[in-house]
Amino acid sequence: MAIGQRVPMVDAVERVTGRVQYTLNLELPGMLVGRILRSTQPHARLARVDARAAERLPGVLAVVTRDDLRDRERFDPFFGPLVRDQPVLALDQVRYVGEAVAAVAAVDEATAEQALELIEVEYEPLPAVFDPEAALAPEAPVLHGESNVMDRYQVRRGDVEQGFREADLVFEAEYRTPPVQHVPLEPHVSIGQVVGDRITLWSATQTPHNVRAQVAAIFRRPLSQVRIIVPTLGGGYGSKCYPKLEPLAALLAWKARRPVKLALSRAEDLLTTNRSGSIIRLKTGILRDGTLVAHRATCYFSKGAYTETGPRVVASGTRAGAACYRTPNVQLDGYTVFTNLPPSGPFRAPGAAQTVWAMESHLDAIARQLGLDPLALRRKNLVRDGDRYVGGGVLEALHFDPLLERATRAIDWDAPRPESAQPSVRRGKGVAISLKTLLTPSISTAACKLNEDGSLSVLTSSVEMGQGAKTVLAQIAAEAMGLPLDQVLISEPDTDTTPYDQTTSSTRTTSCMGAAIRLAVGEVQRQVAELAAAELEVAPEDVVLADGRASVRGVPERSTGYGELVRKSRRGNLLGHGTFVNRAKPDPVTGEPGASSEWHHAVSAAEVEVDTDTGKVRVLRFHSGVFVGRMVNPTQCELQTEGSVTFGLGQGLQEELVFDDGRLANPNLGDYLLPSFKDLPPELSVQVLEDAGLNEIHGIGETSLPSVVAAVGNAVADALGVTVRELPLTPERVLRAIQEAGQDDPAR
Amino acid sequence: MAIGQRVPMVDAVERVTGRVQYTLNLELPGMLVGRILRSTQPHARLARVDARAAERLPGVLAVVTRDDLRDRERFDPFFGPLVRDQPVLALDQVRYVGEAVAAVAAVDEATAEQALELIEVEYEPLPAVFDPEAALAPEAPVLHGESNVMDRYQVRRGDVEQGFREADLVFEAEYRTPPVQHVPLEPHVSIGQVVGDRITLWSATQTPHNVRAQVAAIFRRPLSQVRIIVPTLGGGYGSKCYPKLEPLAALLAWKARRPVKLALSRAEDLLTTNRSGSIIRLKTGILRDGTLVAHRATCYFSKGAYTETGPRVVASGTRAGAACYRTPNVQLDGYTVFTNLPPSGPFRAPGAAQTVWAMESHLDAIARQLGLDPLALRRKNLVRDGDRYVGGGVLEALHFDPLLERATRAIDWDAPRPESAQPSVRRGKGVAISLKTLLTPSISTAACKLNEDGSLSVLTSSVEMGQGAKTVLAQIAAEAMGLPLDQVLISEPDTDTTPYDQTTSSTRTTSCMGAAIRLAVGEVQRQVAELAAAELEVAPEDVVLADGRASVRGVPERSTGYGELVRKSRRGNLLGHGTFVNRAKPDPVTGEPGASSEWHHAVSAAEVEVDTDTGKVRVLRFHSGVFVGRMVNPTQCELQTEGSVTFGLGQGLQEELVFDDGRLANPNLGDYLLPSFKDLPPELSVQVLEDAGLNEIHGIGETSLPSVVAAVGNAVADALGVTVRELPLTPERVLRAIQEAGQDDPAR
Repeated sequence: MAIGQRVPMVDAVERVTGRVQYTLNLELPGMLVGRILRSTQPHARLARVDARAAERLPGVLAVVTRDDLRDRERFDPFFGPLVRDQPVLALDQVRYVGEAVAAVAAVDEATAEQALELIEVEYEPLPAVFDPEAALAPEAPVLHGESNVMDRYQVRRGDVEQGFREADLVFEAEYRTPPVQHVPLEPHVSIGQVVGDRITLWSATQTPHNVRAQVAAIFRRPLSQVRIIVPTLGGGYGSKCYPKLEPLAALLAWKARRPVKLALSRAEDLLTTNRSGSIIRLKTGILRDGTLVAHRATCYFSKGAYTETGPRVVASGTRAGAACYRTPNVQLDGYTVFTNLPPSGPFRAPGAAQTVWAMESHLDAIARQLGLDPLALRRKNLVRDGDRYVGGGVLEALHFDPLLERATRAIDWDAPRPESAQPSVRRGKGVAISLKTLLTPSISTAACKLNEDGSLSVLTSSVEMGQGAKTVLAQIAAEAMGLPLDQVLISEPDTDTTPYDQTTSSTRTTSCMGAAIRLAVGEVQRQVAELAAAELEVAPEDVVLADGRASVRGVPERSTGYGELVRKSRRGNLLGHGTFVNRAKPDPVTGEPGASSEWHHAVSAAEVEVDTDTGKVRVLRFHSGVFVGRMVNPTQCELQTEGSVTFGLGQGLQEELVFDDGRLANPNLGDYLLPSFKDLPPELSVQVLEDAGLNEIHGIGETSLPSVVAAVGNAVADALGVTVRELPLTPERVLRAIQEAGQDDPAR
Repeated sequence: MAIGQRVPMVDAVERVTGRVQYTLNLELPGMLVGRILRSTQPHARLARVDARAAERLPGVLAVVTRDDLRDRERFDPFFGPLVRDQPVLALDQVRYVGEAVAAVAAVDEATAEQALELIEVEYEPLPAVFDPEAALAPEAPVLHGESNVMDRYQVRRGDVEQGFREADLVFEAEYRTPPVQHVPLEPHVSIGQVVGDRITLWSATQTPHNVRAQVAAIFRRPLSQVRIIVPTLGGGYGSKCYPKLEPLAALLAWKARRPVKLALSRAEDLLTTNRSGSIIRLKTGILRDGTLVAHRATCYFSKGAYTETGPRVVASGTRAGAACYRTPNVQLDGYTVFTNLPPSGPFRAPGAAQTVWAMESHLDAIARQLGLDPLALRRKNLVRDGDRYVGGGVLEALHFDPLLERATRAIDWDAPRPESAQPSVRRGKGVAISLKTLLTPSISTAACKLNEDGSLSVLTSSVEMGQGAKTVLAQIAAEAMGLPLDQVLISEPDTDTTPYDQTTSSTRTTSCMGAAIRLAVGEVQRQVAELAAAELEVAPEDVVLADGRASVRGVPERSTGYGELVRKSRRGNLLGHGTFVNRAKPDPVTGEPGASSEWHHAVSAAEVEVDTDTGKVRVLRFHSGVFVGRMVNPTQCELQTEGSVTFGLGQGLQEELVFDDGRLANPNLGDYLLPSFKDLPPELSVQVLEDAGLNEIHGIGETSLPSVVAAVGNAVADALGVTVRELPLTPERVLRAIQEAGQDDPAR
């Protein structure tokens, strides 16, 4: 049984020997260096873009500006996963500092940089807006159309106003999160090549098929004429979904008639996409016994200058905050708001980390006010199997109880906080829970070939980005086909040959692509069983497939190898394909499909030490537990969860993109503070909870992240007796919160 | 209808702009240069191979010798398409001058060359044999096992001795052909890369799947761990079938732990494979009225040092000579003979060019002796539909009559030869016919994806090598799916993803892969018809698919686009696959499968001028006609036929690999004389004959070649009144034949 084994990553050797072929390493004959000229203005009319001097510079093969996109019969210059509102290059105006205004392709980097300096751009500044709430004001400058509200997500359940009236107490508070970035070790990189009618892109993307579709639309070509090849990525976390550099790389290659590589510096990468900052207003009505009766959340997500996946992230975020609790009266409003900042996009557990942190902080503050045990408050209101999900659908297979049990044990929740030797240092403990959805419905298709030696080649467009997709998919395929793991190959995505997959994100690959692969393998298995039945002279249903051999049920010595069957069949190979669409059960009230086909839930628990003199937080113990259905690779599940912890600690305590009048003030990893190994807690444990009875495989890539940020926040609040309501919990903010703690505030 | 159209090659732009990405152009990061140390001896025991000095040279990353292959649990060091008798590197002995003894991988070419010089090799010479007949003598040195006869192909029909007794006249003659080479513009090139358990090869090969299987066997790995990627080839003609450089490229890459490119010089390429030289003895019994009654052919093919495809080439060649004529008593013997020369392999119309030239020359000589019209002699004895093929099977769809009619018209066969102004210059005309088989049975499989915009991506392992495979397969797929041509993409071979195909050779791609693609498209069509039926509310059988739309039969305005159907289906794409095996009808006598699933036949006609002072032959008019079944792309059919004419003229008049004690004496294109455009006849015409009623698509890549050589030979003989019985018909041989013509010889 390949599933459930702690096998090493199938590409472990190439990784540890530094021989992974990233797109960045790829060299094509005659390849040029591409560079991008970026807007210096947060909002401006583009009065003039003059590239003539740059074009004359020796060594420059192409300069592209909006002028190259004027022929609308040839080009449709917009892209975007939901709304095609982002131009390949700025057209009439720029909407954020860093937006691409022009690009060059030259023989080397120095020439390309010099060419950028020769491009003359005249801006006529327009008023700009950076705060999502300010962007809603009537006098705010509008980025697109008639309003900066791109979309509004709503949930209405019961009567929230009536609920507040019925409540014994009502708590209101506002939480703010900054934009943060994914910071994959490998920044964005794409290589374009246009030969005749064919566009080929090698690109570090999580969504090869979406990129193909969008590049095809930009160039007005059929999909068959656009090819996206995706070598292994050096991390993604959502930052590499949907077109980023690809349209521009293709445009430069088209004009230069040579291959062009666009590879971003870290500073540019930090401007390319991010997790949106948010303002979250919560109002919660509660009975004295701790029963939640009404909850209103109003969430403003600053999506930056273009839609990207805005409404989708806002929906999943807005509902995630309220997802864990049975509240009869709920009103959720999530606003997707345009601002003059770089466009934000999906980020590991999109939207949920912000709202879950806010809600879990809010609940702990309420518990403190009411003198309730925060854990008891949660347990009292926790959703259960069969409950309606706040965003629609029916919850099932929830395992909060055992996860809570284990998490609280991990930090000795009930033990008294030890006194510190230093009086300024206080200890605190916090627990938080989260429940998020999976992109539903979504499509994965796979194909496979049983080779003439009985080994299996699987065709998939799932992207390997270090998360171990190849390994778990190989395990799933190996088990399905009855083969040892080293007889299975998982392809890399190449849209010319590998079948459609919607996206490698949203924690969907193991479950959705895994299911598609099992269907494809099933088609091959049927053929093998038929061939074996004829060979062994039994009925196909009496053929057992295992260990690369087909044998007669109950008579294992009567058997034949897969390879022998393929060769004797004279069919060259046996081919199969499968299509899987994850579907949610319908909501019992509306009858509409539910929000998710599986429910990703997690519990995190933290113990921290806060130095009230310096404001510095040290995490002493941390535990995170997730439910996984059936586990494919325990090691990878644990590593993924540890990865979520690392991300969550960074976002909780350190990470923040700081914009100053729309200009990124910390565009490097010296000033943008990622957690290092030194920042990890000395005691770190994870639990990956299986349900042996459940054959369903859940993804795990982002499950625990939202609860991590919140658990740290709650532990800090526990130590201080006051909630810090703006992320990250930097020393400055902690100190300020302590200072302000003297003032009365019912939600603290 | 895409089929039958004169569409330009789908990759025309990249070709004419020099942007085709050949394997030679490919650069990988850290890639090393590989070079091969070759045997200086035609036959010797390898006493010592010492690479220590070479290994110590700075810049050398790997030297491989037989020592690296000693661990037989890790390596099985032999390869070969029929018998695995060719070592990756010479082991105990060398068997031809040029055999690989060692190889190096170094940082640059100069270092690699210097390293080769540092490898010490001690040979203990053994007796060698170069002539296939001499190799059969009891005292001849034996290359493998107990005899140099690797294989003997036999045909026995009737009683040939009785036939000779019944004949009025019996003619005997011996014909000799030299080895010639394919000379693709792109010599052999392979890039190896070994990372962890995975071997990847980019290689100019016509047989990606066979190469994968053989490299996997050498390295004892499952097929899923070996990947062969085949960029467009710069010509193949059979020279790039089966492993050539790939095992060595992989071995070097494995040892160097870096990618290694092996690219041959022309001199090395000429030593790598060739068309075997042959000795053909014919004895033919005939009645005075021209009826053939008995025919014996004994053919010795010098296969060189290793089996390669020897027996297959010898079988197809031996029977091709006798294939066109109804002779009741036939005895054919074809010997595959080992000699101390480079191994020969398949070559455009394998084996047939040699034997057809011999037979057609022989028949013309007989006609001259009997005072018969050579054309009448042929017509009298010509095979007809329903006749048994000499190698087994039933002939059908023969079109010799219209082809002969047109060919003779093209050179004014019946008009008297005009006198030349120069008395030393004589005119002559010749006609020749040929009939060859197709590799039967053979396997092609294909897969396809109907993309979400309704365009089609076809997955095939057919190799594009300039012959236009991508174009004709795209036409076939476009017609099958009902799409414009630019909505169809034909993939390049990548064994990780593209399905099994036996080989791109033997003129099988258009017919066999075309059929597999039609099956794969059919699977998709069924899905489209079902989706459209539901959408349009009719039965699937009332759905008509054309021009990218599904419409209701008889109501074309009720229609929906393929793309719309795919998107609405929420299946991402529609997948299909198909497997085609060409099968021959059984032989009426033996009941065994016939030799071929289709019958490639051609007629060529030449008019020449021979200067009897210089021996120089000038071709004035040339015509070649072939039967094609249904024509996919008339332009490409004509170009293929013109290509066969060019090849045939070169082989008839100029080309010859000259070996001197086993050493190639003309290892460059200054001394090995390819035809140039100047050598082409001023009047050149081709006929590609279709049978509109026949829906079968025949290949055409090599059909006319055998008849071309023979037609030139017959025209020269007609001019001189004497047959030159050794190819090529160089001025020296022509002059010698004229001198010898005084002697009596019944066959002249």
